[in-house]
Amino acid sequence: MKKVNLTEKLNLIDEYWSPKLVGEINDQVVKLAKLKGEFTWHKHDAEDEMFLVLDGRLLIKFRDQEFTLESGEFLIVPRGVEHKPVAEEEVHIMLVEPATTLNTGDVRNEMTKDQVERI
Amino acid sequence: MKKVNLTEKLNLIDEYWSPKLVGEINDQVVKLAKLKGEFTWHKHDAEDEMFLVLDGRLLIKFRDQEFTLESGEFLIVPRGVEHKPVAEEEVHIMLVEPATTLNTGDVRNEMTKDQVERI
Repeated sequence: MKKVNLTEKLNLIDEYWSPKLVGEINDQVVKLAKLKGEFTWHKHDAEDEMFLVLDGRLLIKFRDQEFTLESGEFLIVPRGVEHKPVAEEEVHIMLVEPATTLNTGDVRNEMTKDQVERI
Repeated sequence: MKKVNLTEKLNLIDEYWSPKLVGEINDQVVKLAKLKGEFTWHKHDAEDEMFLVLDGRLLIKFRDQEFTLESGEFLIVPRGVEHKPVAEEEVHIMLVEPATTLNTGDVRNEMTKDQVERI
């Protein structure tokens, strides 16, 4: 058992849009990521995904609405719902999602990360 | 879909040791709680439990060690491991755990909450 300090772990991340594994809860995983810029429209057919903003501001676009999350706010994106995260400035987030979740979901492109590093 | 502001939800909680439901991710739930004082020694036979401290300091005692979590730190307590949370002063936490998790685990006493309210 080891406690995790979010700030210390975030300091180890030097790449945008590349979530890192920091914990496992049952069949779910906890990941941390730094985001900046626009991500790909995608969905996860079988996985709900929790976005908790730790620092900064994250826009999550949907086809019919959008949410702006500030630090200390979260949104759970249900499985099957297309979304596109956009970070005008750098934002630090925590994700909780099934271990099987691929970052780009049903899309495969240059932003796809098949390997998730544990930090 | 609704975003959740952690501070706003915590402001609705006026009872210690009574986690409130604020979200569902797949088969897991997200709960918020205010803690103060000593909780019961207990374990969850089938459920890992994530404790993330949002504000304050939480001591989690185990039979052979203990961890002090500050704001921005988390610990995942594996299933089957006896633990006893202790909060010398009020602490605000976020929990991620299976929907089936009973707050006092394998113990039933006056701190047991069979009903988890959604806020």
